Amino acid sequence: MRRVVFVLVAVVAVAGVVHYMTPTPGQADGEAAPIFGGKIPPGYRDWRLISVAHEEGSLNDLRAILGNDVAIKAYREKRLPYPDGTIIARLAWDYVPLEESKKAFGRLQSFVAGPPKNGVQFMVKDSRKYASTGGWGFAQFNDGKRADEAVHNTCFSCHEAVKARDFVFARYAP
Amino acid sequence: MRRVVFVLVAVVAVAGVVHYMTPTPGQADGEAAPIFGGKIPPGYRDWRLISVAHEEGSLNDLRAILGNDVAIKAYREKRLPYPDGTIIARLAWDYVPLEESKKAFGRLQSFVAGPPKNGVQFMVKDSRKYASTGGWGFAQFNDGKRADEAVHNTCFSCHEAVKARDFVFARYAP
Repeated sequence: MRRVVFVLVAVVAVAGVVHYMTPTPGQADGEAAPIFGGKIPPGYRDWRLISVAHEEGSLNDLRAILGNDVAIKAYREKRLPYPDGTIIARLAWDYVPLEESKKAFGRLQSFVAGPPKNGVQFMVKDSRKYASTGGWGFAQFNDGKRADEAVHNTCFSCHEAVKARDFVFARYAP
Repeated sequence: MRRVVFVLVAVVAVAGVVHYMTPTPGQADGEAAPIFGGKIPPGYRDWRLISVAHEEGSLNDLRAILGNDVAIKAYREKRLPYPDGTIIARLAWDYVPLEESKKAFGRLQSFVAGPPKNGVQFMVKDSRKYASTGGWGFAQFNDGKRADEAVHNTCFSCHEAVKARDFVFARYAP
């Protein structure tokens, strides 16, 4: 049996920007209002750990998936679908070989997190607001700023692969 | 400039067990009393994230470094040495290729955390109790039980490589 844990979604990460695809009610022009008002949710770096991952290829990073209290509770209770208010964050850093352990082992052995890389991504559960994308809104921030709106609709279509897990790739790492 | 972040220490992890090397004051027989009384510190899985890493070779894991409140505060304030009461935890999981992204990318792309692996390790700062090892005690737990006492003294000697960082390899991943 493969037990796989994941990381929002690699395809989304490659695309480089994530937005949310449903217009906010009351917005007549069809423009999507930015999630969190375009700002990073405060305190996300203090959230608890869901899991970790490594992306190869052009992403070449180490990443951590954190969850707010609602997310962690739902994960631990194996609750599906995730309740409204769930927020899942994906942080990533450069994938750096650790020279200190290379010396000790005589070969590359350890890879550690370097500077931040590939932005910070969020999935936000609001079953009414994001009804057309499984109840999830998606957002990416690069250097603290909400990523460009020039977007693709790859986020949700890729997450549909894990519809049975309420569109969430990341499993809880005990 | 290399910015490296780390993970207790790979050599220690390879050795497989970590213990603490200084006898507890008052123990006449020279036996070291188990850290935390031989029990895993409660609530460590809720601690905040310091960093993440990947170990190759026989370790072959993905890992997360978590810190208790004292540790996180010291990290963020770049405080050295770490104050008494600091506890740093290293969790690790099997390094599992994610088939879902392999299909999407046409190649191996994503590696995620599988079942727990290589035990859980802790560094505990008590400058008086562990004075002979830089103020740090070391402990490993396998399947919830304190690892065998049949030990090597590799822990501290390896950590001495980063004496300038108060013997701690892991850097804070922002």
